[in-house]
Amino acid sequence: MEIQQLVRELKIKNDSKIVLLVADGLGGLPLEPGGPTELEAAKTPNLDALAKIGTLGNSIPILPGITPGSGPGHLGLFGYDPLKFLIGRGALEATGVGFNLGPKDVAVRCNFVTLDAAGNITDRRAGRIPSEESAPLAIKLREIKISGIEIFVEPVKEHRFCVIFRGEGLGGSVADTDPQKTGVPPLDPHAHNAESQKTAEIAKQFVAQAEKLLKGQPKANGLTLRGFAKAPALPSYEDVYGLKAAAIAVYPMYKGLAQLVGMDLVGKPTTLAEEIDVLAKAWNDYDFFFVHFKYTDSRGEDGNFAEKAKMIEQFDAVVPRVMALNPTVLAVTGDHSTPAKMKGHSWHAVPVLIAGQNVRTDACQSFGETECLKGGLGQFQAMYLMPLLLAHADRLGKFGA
Amino acid sequence: MEIQQLVRELKIKNDSKIVLLVADGLGGLPLEPGGPTELEAAKTPNLDALAKIGTLGNSIPILPGITPGSGPGHLGLFGYDPLKFLIGRGALEATGVGFNLGPKDVAVRCNFVTLDAAGNITDRRAGRIPSEESAPLAIKLREIKISGIEIFVEPVKEHRFCVIFRGEGLGGSVADTDPQKTGVPPLDPHAHNAESQKTAEIAKQFVAQAEKLLKGQPKANGLTLRGFAKAPALPSYEDVYGLKAAAIAVYPMYKGLAQLVGMDLVGKPTTLAEEIDVLAKAWNDYDFFFVHFKYTDSRGEDGNFAEKAKMIEQFDAVVPRVMALNPTVLAVTGDHSTPAKMKGHSWHAVPVLIAGQNVRTDACQSFGETECLKGGLGQFQAMYLMPLLLAHADRLGKFGA
Repeated sequence: MEIQQLVRELKIKNDSKIVLLVADGLGGLPLEPGGPTELEAAKTPNLDALAKIGTLGNSIPILPGITPGSGPGHLGLFGYDPLKFLIGRGALEATGVGFNLGPKDVAVRCNFVTLDAAGNITDRRAGRIPSEESAPLAIKLREIKISGIEIFVEPVKEHRFCVIFRGEGLGGSVADTDPQKTGVPPLDPHAHNAESQKTAEIAKQFVAQAEKLLKGQPKANGLTLRGFAKAPALPSYEDVYGLKAAAIAVYPMYKGLAQLVGMDLVGKPTTLAEEIDVLAKAWNDYDFFFVHFKYTDSRGEDGNFAEKAKMIEQFDAVVPRVMALNPTVLAVTGDHSTPAKMKGHSWHAVPVLIAGQNVRTDACQSFGETECLKGGLGQFQAMYLMPLLLAHADRLGKFGA
Repeated sequence: MEIQQLVRELKIKNDSKIVLLVADGLGGLPLEPGGPTELEAAKTPNLDALAKIGTLGNSIPILPGITPGSGPGHLGLFGYDPLKFLIGRGALEATGVGFNLGPKDVAVRCNFVTLDAAGNITDRRAGRIPSEESAPLAIKLREIKISGIEIFVEPVKEHRFCVIFRGEGLGGSVADTDPQKTGVPPLDPHAHNAESQKTAEIAKQFVAQAEKLLKGQPKANGLTLRGFAKAPALPSYEDVYGLKAAAIAVYPMYKGLAQLVGMDLVGKPTTLAEEIDVLAKAWNDYDFFFVHFKYTDSRGEDGNFAEKAKMIEQFDAVVPRVMALNPTVLAVTGDHSTPAKMKGHSWHAVPVLIAGQNVRTDACQSFGETECLKGGLGQFQAMYLMPLLLAHADRLGKFGA
């Protein structure tokens, strides 16, 4: 039996409150061997105090050595095996711009391209057209009409935009139309299976109409379609955990990921402080709260060790406001590591802290990567965090008598 | 390849002796953050001495956050994936009263209920009838005869008793007859599949005869049947490990679980001291000895921290007698945690100690939850303990050349 099925069968409802505070890309690396990581360099008196009365560990986002993107990283934290529940590229792109995918939708990542008079691609990224120029063109494509189909076009960035086809009988298995080289025309959309035949036909009509609308554009006069995907069929938090769950996030990607597992988006916060305001306001309406803080990851991606440490300090500073709400169980972790030294996501284990009732305290005195190695939670796959949180909240019954 | 199949293929026979000492519900929790657990508070000079010359770790009974009952907890310790080998409720109940289930048996958990004149249930637990009154009624039901079927009726406790039907062609998939409410009659036994049709028929006859025998009883004049189950098809210790295994336990549940994996029950001990007498007496006749100590769990369930610590001290006190037998490998652990603070089983990792030849000693100086976090065995699923014990006993060959 799989863990999610087991949890589904053992779940118990009660009036406990669980908070999952995610500092994106929390884990880091020392700049010098033996030096502190960003988290260890940051002054985090509030998290350190929780470390003393809580229990620590390290989570492996996917499997050892595997660096996750935001999608699989969060699915793991949410308790969904990221190697079983795959989010197609198109679906992730749509989610990333805040589009709430439904069951009749097929999402596609699109590139503007430059075509010559013969219709061959001369630039696969439309001369890296700036967003200010490409966004109005993407919006212009909203004029396209195809009978029986709703079409949504969303600008993304530079040459990238996103299209969602909504209608009956649209399969998600269509090959990319990007030929991966210049001097040839885009490929025709080709269905991988019978259920996706209609999708391929519609995509073809979409391209034809788009090329008419884009005719005469100097850079972006054509398009390629990639990563056709339906939304993944994810069981909901209510179904698996019996939790009424709220997502509190600033960035569309994380809101979108939370919606995929059936969390409600609450509030429209634009800062961490506002996120905590929203948390406090929604406190009585939900069992579970996912609060996402982006800037630890951003400064890690920038390669700015000192600024990432500063973001961690900002994150630490709101912890007392969360504790004042008296959560039954609080977890603090990240979806992956983003070491400033590497300027990107990494596979390194992510520090985890659980505080609340029934924790078995350990010898840990502060919250940091090395200290977490002494923690009672040991090293575990991120997908087991949710069962641990439910257990601490008395929300899981006994397996077998 | 699954671990049990791997072990089956790699097993080697020799004259080593392995002892698995199980203190039920051994793991605990501190009463205050940072305080000692029951095991840490107990004076355990003998286990501490073994910790210095052995290696420690923590075992996860099932998966993180999952609290096991006795059945899955012991199956894991015995090396059987508890999520693969499921013991049905009826089978566990029969096992718990010491009934040795065979392959032709279907076991059923039964409740005495109170019926009104119209045959509707007025009390689903027969007024919580005391065991002194219910046991004679259960035994009276042994008069029931059904052609071609052997019937065993075993009292359990209060309104609960257990029935085993033995015969050819009895499937175990029959729905519960408990309607889960009062004011309606018990449901008829309904087979979930064709193989269980005969079982359902027999169950119906059993109920009809039972109601006649119980007619006029003020509280227990009816019955409901739940958790129909055949014994799980567990490969034996001999088959998987090549071990001739002895089980030494006081309580029927643990004797029963050991029998399900093909261990011989030896002796009839009633105390821990007598269990060790039995161990010494059987020493030359077996390769493997499972010795079960119940009272650590019992005092944990009572919520009595000090008494649980005292039981751990009693357990510690017999360790020198076990070591005097000179086992090749000794393991000391529990099947799950039963923190006095929680008055019940929990999901927390369980301390493990292995002493004997070829152990890689670690920095651990005493036997306790926090110390175990430094241990060489790390944190591992309980089902891997048996391969570790076999390995230390030189009973597993090399995998691949």
